[in-house]
Amino acid sequence: MKKKAVCLFSGGLDSTTALYAARAENEECIALTFHYGQRHSKEIECARKIAGELGLAHFLVPIELPWKGSALLDSGIAMPSGRSEHEMQKDIPVTYVPARNSIFLTLAASCAEASGVEAIYIGANALDYSGYPDCRPEYFEAAGKMLLLGTKAGVEGKALAIKAPLLRMSKKEIVLLGAKLGVPFEKTWSCYQGKERPCGECDSCVLREKGFREAGISDPLLNHETSSHR
Amino acid sequence: MKKKAVCLFSGGLDSTTALYAARAENEECIALTFHYGQRHSKEIECARKIAGELGLAHFLVPIELPWKGSALLDSGIAMPSGRSEHEMQKDIPVTYVPARNSIFLTLAASCAEASGVEAIYIGANALDYSGYPDCRPEYFEAAGKMLLLGTKAGVEGKALAIKAPLLRMSKKEIVLLGAKLGVPFEKTWSCYQGKERPCGECDSCVLREKGFREAGISDPLLNHETSSHR
Repeated sequence: MKKKAVCLFSGGLDSTTALYAARAENEECIALTFHYGQRHSKEIECARKIAGELGLAHFLVPIELPWKGSALLDSGIAMPSGRSEHEMQKDIPVTYVPARNSIFLTLAASCAEASGVEAIYIGANALDYSGYPDCRPEYFEAAGKMLLLGTKAGVEGKALAIKAPLLRMSKKEIVLLGAKLGVPFEKTWSCYQGKERPCGECDSCVLREKGFREAGISDPLLNHETSSHR
Repeated sequence: MKKKAVCLFSGGLDSTTALYAARAENEECIALTFHYGQRHSKEIECARKIAGELGLAHFLVPIELPWKGSALLDSGIAMPSGRSEHEMQKDIPVTYVPARNSIFLTLAASCAEASGVEAIYIGANALDYSGYPDCRPEYFEAAGKMLLLGTKAGVEGKALAIKAPLLRMSKKEIVLLGAKLGVPFEKTWSCYQGKERPCGECDSCVLREKGFREAGISDPLLNHETSSHR
C-alpha cells in the first residue's frame, strides 16, 4: 500500500513547510485548505497555486461558523499589531478562532478515512503560538486519541496519526527546514491582512520577519522598500 | 450566569429526546443542525419546525465533505434495509459517515466557546449503534479531553463537557424518556429515506419500531396502513 498523508495546508509559511515535510515522508499527499470566513482570501490563492504546481490532490473545504468570536472572522474586532513577541505570549490572542484546529483535524480525519490514509500533517507550532490552546502538545495527544477512537481505524486496528513536524521548532528552525526542503517562500503568505504586500505589523508578520532574520535568510516576499518602511 | 447548553439536533427521535433532556437541565439551549449532504432534507425540516416551536436559537450549519465515503452521502452506495438488529451490530454500517460525530462535536465546541456555554448535548447511543466507532463511551471520553484542551475553557480552568444522556439507553428507554419529557414524537423523523412516510425497512426504522413496541407506546408517525405494509 502506498504511504499517503492528508495535509492541512493554508498557504502560509508553516503549513507549506509541513506539507513539504509530508512530501518527503510519503508517496502521496492530499492537501486540504479551509475557507472559514477569513477576512481575506490571499492565503487561499497561495495554497491553490502551490498545490497546483506540485500536482497534488487539493480539496478546498468551506466551513461556516455563524457564531464568530475571533478577529480573523469578525471585522468588529481590531486585529492586533505592533506587538512584541513577549506581549503575544501573554494571553490567548483575539485572532484565536474557537476550536479551529479541532475542526480542521476532524475534517482531515474524515478525509483520511475516506481516502485510506493513515497520517494527518499539521503545521502547528507550540512556541510561537503558545497563546493558542489548540497548539499545545498535550492538545495534540488528546486529539490523536479522539480521532483514532472515532474512526474505523481505531476499530479495525489501523493507524491514524497526527503529525506536527514543526510543533517544537522556533520560527528560525522552520525557515531553515523550509529552505532545506525547497519551500518556495515567495509563494507563501503569512500576513493577517490580504494586501499587495505584507503589512509588517501584525503578529504573523512580526514572527515571520524574526524567523528569517535569525535564520540568516532573506524573505523573498519583502523587498527593500517594505523593509525600510518597517 | 445562566446555565446554557449547545445541543446537536438532527430532528430525529434520539436527538430530539436529548434536546428535551438538555432543556430540563439548562435555562437556555442553542440548537445546531448540520446539513452535510444527506440524501434528503426531511430531518432538517423537522428540526427547524421543532426548534421554531420551542423558540430556541437555532443554527443550521452546512458541512461539505467532498470525499464522500458513506451511503448517507453517496447515492452510489446501496442503503441497507430489512436487516435484523443482530445483523446491524456485526459490522460498521455503510451509513457510517467518516468522523461524523467528531466533526459535529468540534463545531459544537466552537459554538459553545463563542457563546459562553459549558455543555454540549448529543443524542448518541452506544447500544443501538454499536457498529459506529464514534458512538462508543471510550470515544466520548477522549473527545471530551480533546475539546477541553483545544478551547479557552481548558486554559482558563472552565468546564466544557460532552453530555450524552442516551448513551447507555435502549431504544425502549429512549422512547419512555421522550414520553416523560413531552417529546412531540409525531414531529421527529428517523427514516433514512426522505419519503412521505417512514419506509419501515431501513435500519433506523427497524430500531425505532422496536423501541416503541417494547415501550408499549404507539408511534404517532405510523398509521395502520403503514403498519400492515410492514
